[in-house]
Amino acid sequence: MIVVADNLQITHPVVQSALRNLNPDPLKALVRRMETAGARMIDINTGPLGKGAEEKMTFLVQAVEEATRLPLIMDTANPVAMAAGVKAAQKRVTLNGFSLEPRKLKHILPLAAQYEADIIGYLLDAQGRIPPTADERLTLAVEVHQACLKAGVPQERLIVDPVVAPLLWEDGQAQNRVVLKVIQSLPGVLGYEVRTVAGLSNLTAGTQFSDKQAAMECAYGAMLAASGLHMILVNIFHQKTVRVLEACDALLSEKVFTWET
Amino acid sequence: MIVVADNLQITHPVVQSALRNLNPDPLKALVRRMETAGARMIDINTGPLGKGAEEKMTFLVQAVEEATRLPLIMDTANPVAMAAGVKAAQKRVTLNGFSLEPRKLKHILPLAAQYEADIIGYLLDAQGRIPPTADERLTLAVEVHQACLKAGVPQERLIVDPVVAPLLWEDGQAQNRVVLKVIQSLPGVLGYEVRTVAGLSNLTAGTQFSDKQAAMECAYGAMLAASGLHMILVNIFHQKTVRVLEACDALLSEKVFTWET
Repeated sequence: MIVVADNLQITHPVVQSALRNLNPDPLKALVRRMETAGARMIDINTGPLGKGAEEKMTFLVQAVEEATRLPLIMDTANPVAMAAGVKAAQKRVTLNGFSLEPRKLKHILPLAAQYEADIIGYLLDAQGRIPPTADERLTLAVEVHQACLKAGVPQERLIVDPVVAPLLWEDGQAQNRVVLKVIQSLPGVLGYEVRTVAGLSNLTAGTQFSDKQAAMECAYGAMLAASGLHMILVNIFHQKTVRVLEACDALLSEKVFTWET
Repeated sequence: MIVVADNLQITHPVVQSALRNLNPDPLKALVRRMETAGARMIDINTGPLGKGAEEKMTFLVQAVEEATRLPLIMDTANPVAMAAGVKAAQKRVTLNGFSLEPRKLKHILPLAAQYEADIIGYLLDAQGRIPPTADERLTLAVEVHQACLKAGVPQERLIVDPVVAPLLWEDGQAQNRVVLKVIQSLPGVLGYEVRTVAGLSNLTAGTQFSDKQAAMECAYGAMLAASGLHMILVNIFHQKTVRVLEACDALLSEKVFTWET
């Protein structure tokens, strides 16, 4: 399971100040700390970026790539910003992401074909809603898969996100059990070893992060790993969680384990 | 998943000194700390106990029951000690345990019928060995189940232990993936919702317990929970592990979750 740091969000003070002052140094220092903490990919969640989106995204991508050789994920709903990020990046990036919402199908998905990029597809319906049952989500997965092929994106580039629910939601637990089932069922339903990704930080969204939240992240992260998840977005400075996710990898790996490594 | 404290082992200094001095007070204090730490059952692992086994077991069971109302598990290969423990206990106890080894079938399993007690059945062959594949272990489970019925123990009293392997073993990881698969497959193979138990402490056996071991316990404990395990034996003072196991319960529960409780 590839641990993806989701720390670089437009709301993060370091990201905000980097954009405001056009000074990449504190941002680069943060990125280096993220890599040291265990990140294997970095999600750059910029939001739409508004005015000057292309310049801002270019600046951010260049700053991050100056600090790390880790692969990047471009996380924005603005196709202009997304395209600018892809062009600015030295390395191949992953696009995050599209769904069956018409504007995503029209403006985001084609970028994956155009730039031969991996792309994350969310199991949301055309109205952006999360259906309650596993069967309904698996039906959406078939539609997401078909949309990819139709847009000229090979199935190997698709990474399905079954959408982790905040436990704050009334049916959050039940939804997250559905997420586990969907991850387990996807290869059978789509007929190939489709890659999957999940945002673990969603689980504790809307609450103050403390020991209880950390225990929930560890527990659900390991359940996601056991279900066969390929990539997981997480606050990389949640060290307990990251250590447990690394332990999951060791437990599920075909490589011989030793306590010493 | 019921969290069972496995701390009361004959090697524990407090247990040793309680038996030596016939002073139950430090033992009772330990048991109360175990309950506070999250124990929902207590395994009393006395070993064979040797000379005076009946008196020793009686003393231990009475001491523990004076300190807590939690249900007990009698963990000894000595049928005389086991019977003494069952008789000494005010509450119904669980026997831990039998396997297809002839002396266990002959001397331990009948106690479950005699005292109408729940009993743990290990997936070990007649020579006490752990077979490498899931199919072989599931075959053993069928034999363990049949042995129960033949001995007059109803299937509802059987709790299957698929035997967690130490990660120190060369094939420990692979064996423990087999354990997950066995737990998932057992209800289908036996045709009813058979209860299962696993000893999480085995995972890190033979190593110094530190952060790495804690992360492994959290990771594998959550995987066991997601696989449908009913009872888990753990060092109850491994607080990170216990908090993660409790988080698993909340995630898998049908009760509505709130962060406040």
